[in-house]
Amino acid sequence: MTNKNLIDTLAAIVGHDHVLTADYDVAPYLTDWRGRYHGVALCIARPANTAEVAAVVRACAEAETPIVPQGGNTSHCGAGIPDATGRAVLVSLSRMNAIRAIDTANDTITAEAGCILQTVQEAAAAAGRLFPLSLAAEGSCQIGGNLATNAGGVQVLRYGNARELTLGLEAVLPDGQVWDGLRGLRKDNTGYDLKQLFIGSEGTLGIITAAVLKLFPLPRATATAWLAIASARAAVRLLGELQAAFGTALTACELISDVSLGLVEKNIPGARAPLADSPWYLLVELSGPGEDEALRASLSDFLAGALAGGDIADAVVAQNGRQAERLWTLRESISEAQKIEGVSIKHDISVPVSRLGEFLDRADTALAAAHPGIRIVAFGHVGDGNLHYNQSRPETGENAAFIAATPAVNRVVHDIVHALGGSISAEHGIGQLKREELRRYKSAVELDMMRAVKRALDPRGIMNPGKVL
Amino acid sequence: MTNKNLIDTLAAIVGHDHVLTADYDVAPYLTDWRGRYHGVALCIARPANTAEVAAVVRACAEAETPIVPQGGNTSHCGAGIPDATGRAVLVSLSRMNAIRAIDTANDTITAEAGCILQTVQEAAAAAGRLFPLSLAAEGSCQIGGNLATNAGGVQVLRYGNARELTLGLEAVLPDGQVWDGLRGLRKDNTGYDLKQLFIGSEGTLGIITAAVLKLFPLPRATATAWLAIASARAAVRLLGELQAAFGTALTACELISDVSLGLVEKNIPGARAPLADSPWYLLVELSGPGEDEALRASLSDFLAGALAGGDIADAVVAQNGRQAERLWTLRESISEAQKIEGVSIKHDISVPVSRLGEFLDRADTALAAAHPGIRIVAFGHVGDGNLHYNQSRPETGENAAFIAATPAVNRVVHDIVHALGGSISAEHGIGQLKREELRRYKSAVELDMMRAVKRALDPRGIMNPGKVL
Repeated sequence: MTNKNLIDTLAAIVGHDHVLTADYDVAPYLTDWRGRYHGVALCIARPANTAEVAAVVRACAEAETPIVPQGGNTSHCGAGIPDATGRAVLVSLSRMNAIRAIDTANDTITAEAGCILQTVQEAAAAAGRLFPLSLAAEGSCQIGGNLATNAGGVQVLRYGNARELTLGLEAVLPDGQVWDGLRGLRKDNTGYDLKQLFIGSEGTLGIITAAVLKLFPLPRATATAWLAIASARAAVRLLGELQAAFGTALTACELISDVSLGLVEKNIPGARAPLADSPWYLLVELSGPGEDEALRASLSDFLAGALAGGDIADAVVAQNGRQAERLWTLRESISEAQKIEGVSIKHDISVPVSRLGEFLDRADTALAAAHPGIRIVAFGHVGDGNLHYNQSRPETGENAAFIAATPAVNRVVHDIVHALGGSISAEHGIGQLKREELRRYKSAVELDMMRAVKRALDPRGIMNPGKVL
Repeated sequence: MTNKNLIDTLAAIVGHDHVLTADYDVAPYLTDWRGRYHGVALCIARPANTAEVAAVVRACAEAETPIVPQGGNTSHCGAGIPDATGRAVLVSLSRMNAIRAIDTANDTITAEAGCILQTVQEAAAAAGRLFPLSLAAEGSCQIGGNLATNAGGVQVLRYGNARELTLGLEAVLPDGQVWDGLRGLRKDNTGYDLKQLFIGSEGTLGIITAAVLKLFPLPRATATAWLAIASARAAVRLLGELQAAFGTALTACELISDVSLGLVEKNIPGARAPLADSPWYLLVELSGPGEDEALRASLSDFLAGALAGGDIADAVVAQNGRQAERLWTLRESISEAQKIEGVSIKHDISVPVSRLGEFLDRADTALAAAHPGIRIVAFGHVGDGNLHYNQSRPETGENAAFIAATPAVNRVVHDIVHALGGSISAEHGIGQLKREELRRYKSAVELDMMRAVKRALDPRGIMNPGKVL
């Protein structure tokens, strides 16, 4: 089939208006939001439903044409951007944005892949339920992409990753068959749990078209506090004490370094530190049934004990929703503050929670020795052992020299992560950004297994080639 | 290689004492605990560590000899019993029973496959932590088998199935390679999540040799109540109210029919119903941080409201641990009581929680019409939509006739389950018992995907043949 014939075939499936080829139409799909990846596509196909996705995939499979699925195009790793050959058809799921069902007695919502994450959250809330997946891009990322990347976010400690929130999937396979695995069951031990393969596979095994997701009771009460602490080790100790005292009421436990908060104060208008300077801070949130006041009182009691015991240097408990929001804004402004500060190198790493302190000691020391003046911007989800361990260039340094040092910086950080049994991508995935790093750190046995699975489900190798593997 | 040669090779690997061939030695491994399946094996090999498992598998692979992995031999579906050909080597994991590590700051325990579940629970408790997987066979089942079956149990509502409790795996692949996936990470998005394939695959893709499992804070407070309710629909309604009121403090919510309780009262010495007769009962347990007394008071308040609102007919709250244990004993004696009553047909089904009432209406009616006098013994985990929907023969009926009706009874029950989007095996797996049923109810697309995965990882087809697929 010629390219022209394939484009015509796709237009016959999804309609002429939904096959994009003009430069100004395709541009937004072919560059990622951070502007790091630029691809070329034969065309953008925008199917409206599962049958259209299946027909598009079938046509591409017959033409041996690569397919790049794309959701909200918010990947940190270029997972949704095609390569430069221009051979691929980019399949945008944006038009598949229906909430198909909400079942409050079963606590499930069935959403199509192209639903914006915030839309899913809002549909759940309108039914009196919580859909807890929550992350910075929630206003534009799509649930299909969240599942394809097994997204994390700030509530994983309590509710788990996207994987744990998924009960069933519908997916179009690389040969265009539709797999209907849209089950809303809490228990189902009938053979291999195939949905687990698609979750986190970044579009390399098929296209997720819909999912049955878990809902939870809306928490009635919330209590939020900002703590000044001496070290990341103190944070790990406090995490244990908070979990023993509050169990799953502990919804978030976010670690923030002094450098991170400093950048926020410097670069974000109106940002003000809630406490006097300290090497580290913890943002703690409890939520659950009951009343705000009682939960706040419990948290205050706990913090009074921890203050007396010397585990924390100071603490403030938000007295209302506005104060809590202000604390969260500090946490959520770090990325933006770092961007304003200039070029940066980013790492999304995890280690066993017990080794967070050791990781920071080793990585901080090694980076300071190898790259004098480098500024370390560390923050993240202490309960998940997940740090966004970023670097900004020395205040007096050159951007170009700092960017050139990226591979060396990555090597230092990832080698230490690997030595501590950690992960070089905790929640952002691999995409094209970390493909080479993956080959470096995964065992040959594991890479071979991944390749065997890939070959088994996508023998033509047309699904999102050049990503992950 | 001759059989004799293979046995000698295995003896050289694991030691002569640990290759069993004598009838009285092999007998316990070749019949399942319910006495339904009887197999024949070339020998039983009992490796002591991962390297020995790998060498055993390599030797079998070279000889093209089937391998049947076995843990505590407590499968309900004959998953660990070989076929009658006598060709297979049964690999018992019992000697691999070390707790390799406990990391309280990371809340993880690393256990070898042959650890008895109760041993894992006790090791966790000794370290001040909870390992929440809990089921009737916990004194003899092994954690490797629990993971291979993705075991469920009574605390899934709060803590999830075995799958959700697993962070990392070590497994021996069908070619004898060792995959070290023993990571203790809460977040790790570096490629396909291969451990998910082994969990629930019932030994058909490899042999799980060790796992990193999640631990939780030990709950300090518990409150237990027994409720009399009018219907399963009322149970689903109450479940929603309990979750809204108590969130994750709701650890168990067990539904018990009047017939089930009646058999316990009749057949279990000392068993006494806590309340006057009612069509259904709910056993509710809350647990969490805090104090027993406060939690009991909260539960009593809730129940007073539900009584006033008419959702429950009567209720009793256990005033101490002994009373709570007596209530749990009633629940846990149902299987034994049914066994004493005579032959039975068992179903381990799940449906969306919202359809439990509809399932019972339809299945009860259809069975009563097709098999007059049949006694329905229904109980299970209402929060998981998982019922043990069992049948005892009519009081005046013949055992043989009832057993002969098994396929017809299965058809009625499983057809309704399927129509309601449910599962014919919620927590027991497929094994050899439900292999034909699986083919009947799974889509061709899904079976094909399962076969493709099986071929990719076990191209010789030597891992536990005749099970699942």
